Parts: sequence; structure tokens; C-alpha cells
Amino acid sequence: MSTGMVYLTRRERFNAAHKLWVEAWSDEKNQQMFGKCSNRNWHGHNYDLFVTVKGQPDPVTGFVMDVKELSKLIKMTIVDKVDHSNLNLDVDFIPKGMQPTTENLAILFWQQLEPHIKNCKLHSIKLYETENIYVEYFGE
Amino acid sequence: MSTGMVYLTRRERFNAAHKLWVEAWSDEKNQQMFGKCSNRNWHGHNYDLFVTVKGQPDPVTGFVMDVKELSKLIKMTIVDKVDHSNLNLDVDFIPKGMQPTTENLAILFWQQLEPHIKNCKLHSIKLYETENIYVEYFGE
Amino acid sequence: MSTGMVYLTRRERFNAAHKLWVEAWSDEKNQQMFGKCSNRNWHGHNYDLFVTVKGQPDPVTGFVMDVKELSKLIKMTIVDKVDHSNLNLDVDFIPKGMQPTTENLAILFWQQLEPHIKNCKLHSIKLYETENIYVEYFGE
Amino acid sequence: MSTGMVYLTRRERFNAAHKLWVEAWSDEKNQQMFGKCSNRNWHGHNYDLFVTVKGQPDPVTGFVMDVKELSKLIKMTIVDKVDHSNLNLDVDFIPKGMQPTTENLAILFWQQLEPHIKNCKLHSIKLYETENIYVEYFGE
Amino acid sequence: MSTGMVYLTRRERFNAAHKLWVEAWSDEKNQQMFGKCSNRNWHGHNYDLFVTVKGQPDPVTGFVMDVKELSKLIKMTIVDKVDHSNLNLDVDFIPKGMQPTTENLAILFWQQLEPHIKNCKLHSIKLYETENIYVEYFGE
Amino acid sequence: MSTGMVYLTRRERFNAAHKLWVEAWSDEKNQQMFGKCSNRNWHGHNYDLFVTVKGQPDPVTGFVMDVKELSKLIKMTIVDKVDHSNLNLDVDFIPKGMQPTTENLAILFWQQLEPHIKNCKLHSIKLYETENIYVEYFGE
Repeated sequence: MSTGMVYLTRRERFNAAHKLWVEAWSDEKNQQMFGKCSNRNWHGHNYDLFVTVKGQPDPVTGFVMDVKELSKLIKMTIVDKVDHSNLNLDVDFIPKGMQPTTENLAILFWQQLEPHIKNCKLHSIKLYETENIYVEYFGE
Repeated sequence: MSTGMVYLTRRERFNAAHKLWVEAWSDEKNQQMFGKCSNRNWHGHNYDLFVTVKGQPDPVTGFVMDVKELSKLIKMTIVDKVDHSNLNLDVDFIPKGMQPTTENLAILFWQQLEPHIKNCKLHSIKLYETENIYVEYFGE
Repeated sequence: MSTGMVYLTRRERFNAAHKLWVEAWSDEKNQQMFGKCSNRNWHGHNYDLFVTVKGQPDPVTGFVMDVKELSKLIKMTIVDKVDHSNLNLDVDFIPKGMQPTTENLAILFWQQLEPHIKNCKLHSIKLYETENIYVEYFGE
Repeated sequence: MSTGMVYLTRRERFNAAHKLWVEAWSDEKNQQMFGKCSNRNWHGHNYDLFVTVKGQPDPVTGFVMDVKELSKLIKMTIVDKVDHSNLNLDVDFIPKGMQPTTENLAILFWQQLEPHIKNCKLHSIKLYETENIYVEYFGE
Repeated sequence: MSTGMVYLTRRERFNAAHKLWVEAWSDEKNQQMFGKCSNRNWHGHNYDLFVTVKGQPDPVTGFVMDVKELSKLIKMTIVDKVDHSNLNLDVDFIPKGMQPTTENLAILFWQQLEPHIKNCKLHSIKLYETENIYVEYFGE
Repeated sequence: MSTGMVYLTRRERFNAAHKLWVEAWSDEKNQQMFGKCSNRNWHGHNYDLFVTVKGQPDPVTGFVMDVKELSKLIKMTIVDKVDHSNLNLDVDFIPKGMQPTTENLAILFWQQLEPHIKNCKLHSIKLYETENIYVEYFGE
């Protein structure tokens, strides 16, 4: 079947602690900007991570990519490093001082994973912080 | 981090009554086109509203937009006016005689909210009428 | 297999309009008690209805009850009468003047369905009004 | 209201059995590529199918397309043929020997449905195999 | 804290094929009783399995039971045997000729798991076949 | 309508950080028992809290309890104290040294809320830590 692009998405999940806090700011300014998210003693979330790759299905296997392989790559480059972590303190690929907002996490996750996707292309990172808030990043 | 666009989505919810009914049509024609949705005495839904804005995360806060501010704007311009309302009778920004279909609501919600989004851009309105039906509108 | 009770649940869905409004009360008292739910022009919901029956699985078919038959009974006695209806005005088994709260609906649905369940027993009616509110009724 | 495109989505569901198995390969190679999905005796899934069409809402009805009509078309061209089927053996529009992967199914579903969409355009087929895996196809 | 019973639930998931078919019956009778579920070539489901145990939380760990240990036991006694299987053909603990209905599966899963639960008690098996159908079994 | 008990449930949500860590134990023993949950720098969750009360619906209002009042009580006694908190450090009603497991939280939440429920009875606390793990407590 000669066809166009198919987009394949894999969900992974992780739990982590974080806070939003700008060191250069006073307590008051942090409280004013970040509200409860600036709690000094941290809070946390169950994150839902959706990774989408795109490509043409292989004519024999019917796979854009082996989804088990995609799952392994997401775990190796992202989930194993952030699951049950403190996003401000524990994760080597999150620069110190960068706010671990959902927006920044999505960009950093792209940078972690993208070099490992072969034969098809990374299309998007979608990250849920709560059932009411998510971000998407397309690498551009 | 110099990056591209990040898309940030906030969900809000509301409940409302409506009916689909063209005044210029006979009862039979309304029944034929709209079926049960034309019930003279109304029916209703729990609507799920997803609003997406896009922009570059602020280098200090890591926010495309303060999601609490986005939530307030959605409530002020849309949810406070439609929640627990009758969409045919009670809402000032829905023209009388316009069918309150999910399609038309999405467009009207865009028009309500778009002028209030500053520093980043409104990207889409996604509106669920039931778990099986939703629409998306991108303003163009 | 000689076993104990197995509980079988079937979900059905319907959409309806209603308001909460006690005729004998002033507008102010209705507003005070029922808040936005007392909107004169109605509001509405997507209701999720879970009906549970209990019995011993038939040794040949493995069924407590044919779930397609259960679905038909729920539709015949409840859903066909309330779907796309106005719960205050349109439903013959809801007494005029009785508030169509989720609590009262659950009890009335039990009374509608229970006489039709043969060979096994009706165990419960569970009714979601929103994702955040549901009631359960066990007939006693 | 002169407006742009609105995207309307309808969800349908079906259950089916399948296996992933390349006839030309040894058992070992099938096992290596497809893992548990190559089980000779089949396995199965509850599939969630989201079909999106796009168009301008009709100025009178407010519909991009009658969603009940869309539902009928999806059932007629896709769901009635795949529901409670064996995707490798029972479905006339799935070529023998083609792997019934989620990717290939999405493309085939597009080809089945697209000729039947009138007055608006088919935009995408989104197919969930599990809560963790889905694909999207846009016809190009 | 001297307290009463706490009920702890763990969800696991599996995918499987099955059909409902009584050997002693004609094709017509099977079709009449089981409808599409009697398709000779099988169909399948994504099953959601909820296992609940009850006990008093340990005063030091705060655990009724280590939920990771519970997960392992469910996998060892149930999921590893039914995941990506044919429930009529492949599973040693499902008696040949017994219909693999959701009801019978719940009872058999109880029998598989119950002897392995130590220090607390198995309370219930809850098994979803689709989002609209589930059963519960309490061992009595 | 003279009827039996109706059970009314309200969901609230909160996000928090915690760790599982017994002070009297070595690092190795904590790691062995609690695994990743013992991360020194905390991790966190989105918690879903379902509170159920039971009673007879009021003959005039049709309410077991005003669900807005129930929501306020849950927020006042529980959610306002745990939302965006560190469960090991910040919450006055969680004894220092008690593990903030889902089991212990459910019991403590019961103790917080129960004295405030008037005219009907608290029936259960159900608390989700992840989509795969939840506990229930019935006060006895």
C-alpha cells in the first residue's frame, strides 16, 4: 500500500515532585506569580506523557515503528530519569534554575528523545500535568 | 532555551440546556432534521471545553501563559455565561435564532475569548458535547 | 462450578434537561437552596447510568443474565423515556413537583426497572450527574 | 456567520481478534518481531475509533455534517464489518497477508469511508488499540 | 492508629481473544443466544482487572499489603496466563467447554489468586470487558 | 416517597508530594521496602478523593445532603490542608512519623471529615493515588 504519513502515539506515565520558584525573587513575588505551586516543601503530580512519531508503515510488518521499542526509548531517555523524582533536584537533563513547568518539561523531553528516533520522525510530545492542564510541543 | 512554540491547554466544564429548532420550519421538518434534539421542552449536556493557546515559554517563569489567568479568562468570557444556562434563551453572545450546535458554540467561544488573550495566541477551541462527539475550531 | 453471587453491571447513557425548583417557595429561597440549578430556563446533563444485577452464572451459558437483554430492559423502562427529555415536564414516571435530583432519579429508576428483572436480582442503580457527583441506590 | 473550518469528530467502538504474523517468516522471526502479538491462537482488543470531518457549519442547521448520518456511514463502511470479527480472516477490505496493525487499519478505514463523505471532507482517522497506543491518519 | 479494615485495589490489564459457543448446540442456537459473540473465528477485548484486598494497615509501613507484591501475584497467577491469549484454547485454568464469559472469568481469577494472598484477605475481583460491561465477584 | 438509603458521592482532587521512609530503618531497608517511593527528595501524585455519604433524600428538596455543602466541608477539613502540600511535613493532622500511604490518608481523612457530617452519615472515603491504585475506608 503506497500511503502517506501515519502518526503513532505511545503513552507512558510517571510521578514526580516539583515546585515553581525563582531564586532571584522574594518569597512574596514567588507566591504572587506561582501561588500554591511555590510551596517551599514541594508538591507533586501524576504525569501522563504521550509521544507521537510519524512515518510510513513498513510494507511487511505494518509498523511505523515497533511500539515496544518506542516504549523502551521513552523509558530509557525520559521516564527512568523522572519517575519518582524531584524535578528540581534529581534530573540531570533539567538545568538547575530552570522552572520545571509542563512547558519546559515538554521541550526537554523532546531534546532527550529526538536523537534516538531512527527510521521515522518524532512528531510531538504531549504532557498532562493534571486532567485539566496539558501542553504539546512539536520541536519547532 | 531558545525554542519554538509550545501549546498549552486548559479544560473547563459547564452544564447547559438547549434544543435544535429552526423557527421557519414545520414540526415535522425539525423532527426529521434534528430528531430527539428538537424536543420542544429542551434537553441538556455536560460540556467539556478545552482551550489551547500557543507561544514561547517565558525564560524566567517557564510559562507560555499563567494557566490560572487563562482559566479566569475562560470563566469570565464563556463559562460564567453558559454554565447552568439555556443556550437558546439565556446567553447574550449567542444570536437569537442561531442553532446552539457544538459547531456554532465553538466559533462563538473563540470570538468571545480571542480578544482577551495577550502575549500569546489563541490556537483552538475544542468542545465535547458527549463522550462520542466533539468539535474543534482554529479561528480560520 | 458451584459458586456464589456474581454482580453484573451494564452502563447506559442519556442526556436531559432539568431544574430544581420548589413551587411553594419564593424565588429567593429557591435560589438560596438550589443556586444555579434553579435557573428558570433549565440546564442539563449527560447522565451515566450503571445498573447492577446479581445471580449465579448459568452453568451452560456462563451468564448471570444476557447483558443484551439487560440493556434492552434498561432502555425500555428508563432510557427511552428520559433521553433528550425535560425531567420536570416530559417523564410519566417522575411525579409532578418531585425534584428531579440525582437521588430521586436513582430511586425512580429502580422502581421502573425492578419488576422486569427475572431469574436474577436487581442489586443497584448508580447514576452520575457529572464526573464529580454520583449516587447509588440499593432498593432498601 | 462567515467562518472558517470546523472539525467534527464522532467516536465509534468495536471489538475484534487479530494476530500479527508474516507467513514468509519462521516462528522464531515472528516471535522476535511481534512478541506476544504473534500468538497463533489470536488475541484481541476493544478498539476506539475517532473519525473527524471538516467543513463550514450550515448557516441554517449549524451542522458541519449531521453527526447521526456520520455515525451511520462509519457503521456501514467500517464497524459493521470489523465488530466481533477476526481481522485476519473475516474482513473483505483487509487484504489477505496484510498485517492488521493499528497503522494499516487506520489507512484502510480511511479508504473505506472517504468516498462516502459528501459536502464536507474527511480529515482524520484516529484509532486506539489500547489506552496506551493509538494512531492517526490524515489521508496523505 | 487502631483502625478497621482498609480496602486496597490494584488494576492490571490484559488483551485476549475468545468466543462464546456451546458445543452441544446448533449454529442457530449459538447465534440466537450469543449473537456476534459466537463468531466462529473469535473476537477479543481489552480487559481491565481490579483486584481488591482488605486488612489493617501495618502500624510501621502503613501498608495493608505491598501493592507491588500484589501486582506481582496478579501477574503470576492470572495476567501472564491470559494476556495475548485465546481464552477458549490457551489457558490451563479455564476448563475446556466452560464459556469464557466475564462472569466465569471473575470466579476463576478469584480461585487462581486467593490461595496466594497472605496476611490480608482477598475481597473482590472486578473485571471490565468493555467500558459498558463489568462484573464483580466476592468469593461467596 | 418513603424509601431506603441513598448513597451520594462527591469527588475532589488535590496534588501533593510525599515519601515513604521509616526513620528507624537504614537506607537499605527503606529502599528494600518502599523502592522508588523512598526517594529522599520526594515524589508526588495527583490524588482523586471520593467521599460518600448516605441518608434518605429530603422529601422537599430531594437531597440526601446539599452536594455544594459537602464539597465545602471536604475542602475545609481535607483539601485545603493537603493540596499542593508535602504530606510528610506540612499537614497538621498527619502525625509526624506516620507513613503517608494511601491507606493511612484514607483513615485520617475520615477522622477529619466525619465529625462535620450532620443529618446524614459518612459512608466511605475512596482515594486514588494513581489510575492503578486506590483504597477505600468505611470507618470500621
